Amino acid sequence: MSGKLFVVGTGPGNPDQTTPEALAAIEASHVFFGYGPYLDRLTLRPDQRRVASDNREELARAKDALHTAASGERVCVVSGGDPGVFAMAAAVLESIEAGPPAWRAVDLQIVPGVTAMLAVAARAGAPLGHDFCAISLSDNLKPWTVIEARLRAVATAGLVIALYNPISKARPWQLGTAFAILREALPWSTPVIFGRAAGRPDEAITIMTLAEADPGRADMATCVIIGSPETRIIERDGMSPLVLSPRSTGGGT
Amino acid sequence: MSGKLFVVGTGPGNPDQTTPEALAAIEASHVFFGYGPYLDRLTLRPDQRRVASDNREELARAKDALHTAASGERVCVVSGGDPGVFAMAAAVLESIEAGPPAWRAVDLQIVPGVTAMLAVAARAGAPLGHDFCAISLSDNLKPWTVIEARLRAVATAGLVIALYNPISKARPWQLGTAFAILREALPWSTPVIFGRAAGRPDEAITIMTLAEADPGRADMATCVIIGSPETRIIERDGMSPLVLSPRSTGGGT
Repeated sequence: MSGKLFVVGTGPGNPDQTTPEALAAIEASHVFFGYGPYLDRLTLRPDQRRVASDNREELARAKDALHTAASGERVCVVSGGDPGVFAMAAAVLESIEAGPPAWRAVDLQIVPGVTAMLAVAARAGAPLGHDFCAISLSDNLKPWTVIEARLRAVATAGLVIALYNPISKARPWQLGTAFAILREALPWSTPVIFGRAAGRPDEAITIMTLAEADPGRADMATCVIIGSPETRIIERDGMSPLVLSPRSTGGGT
Repeated sequence: MSGKLFVVGTGPGNPDQTTPEALAAIEASHVFFGYGPYLDRLTLRPDQRRVASDNREELARAKDALHTAASGERVCVVSGGDPGVFAMAAAVLESIEAGPPAWRAVDLQIVPGVTAMLAVAARAGAPLGHDFCAISLSDNLKPWTVIEARLRAVATAGLVIALYNPISKARPWQLGTAFAILREALPWSTPVIFGRAAGRPDEAITIMTLAEADPGRADMATCVIIGSPETRIIERDGMSPLVLSPRSTGGGT
């Protein structure tokens, strides 16, 4: 017997940004796997069971979820934001690839969500208004040299950069080094957005220049967006400024 | 008197993927501006007025919406997907930047949504599982030489590539040329996903190799995702294959 495995993105944390599709998947599930703070956002029934784990245990969590689903349960793996962006979908697929044949037979449904950079961008204006990229600054799963090379390549190519996982207690220096690399490739006046907890009551959106950008402004709940050479600020009297990456680029009309 | 301007993303087209926040903004608005097919998805009250325009008239639409909001109306500019990703948020901000001071005073709220690449990725597995970028293939607003240089840079750097606006009647050759450029930078076995109308009744998700990739598979409603050298396929008996861009990259553990 093979159960069902939902891999759900609940969005940035504001309940109004969770899709009905995600809520329906949660309603239909009986066992929930996820990072504790994400599970805490759910309102579960007494017959629904939660299995919280640390945010460094993604592969073990994925395997537990697949094992449980393959035994016939209706299982939900919960991510914040979108499950496909630096979240649980890849860990689940890596586990399926390396796991027993029964795991490939599990009915898998991935439910997309609003990922952090979209929520931050919406609060800041249109910083992702032209070509952009999303890069995880965590060197737990890739060498730092790869991250440095990618930052140089995308900044030089004129893409806006959204940084996920910018900083943590175990990775304190990477964001500062990333800013130093980007100062070599971009005008120091380039706008940088620190978007913390976008859409939630404790939201904090801070706009600085690349020259001023202070890694201390970021924590694990922050998505950092660095503009391209085209990105600019629109000032407004008595309101927060807007950040615009215009649609026209590099001589376009 | 200054009204209100919502810039709303309704998601990929499946009503279950529209957020409550977007629905509330629509509920609160009286005049709607947008591309006709996006407005057609809304259920409006008799007191709500729609102003449909062509998808090549984004700047004129943004100006009309700002003018109407500045006159005191509650206005909603409607995008499919997310308004900040190759959609109306940038056009609205460009209009604010170039427009009269009254437009800067308009109460602006941008409401994020599930953008097409996330919906397509969810249906295909985890193709955006590591660093990725989003590039518009439209050369209406930037020179084709810029697009070519960006494709080479991001493919060489190992990012997964999501292509928006891959093809149209006025731009018939660009996608084929993009595939030719990418075949110079990537293994020909790299998975390519043609994601059409993800989440809608007419959804079609097609997975090919870069060698086989056929521009004729794409239309204006398609988001094309091209893997990195790390991206691979997981075959499943009797079910569609899954596409995985693993979290570990380039020698990581």
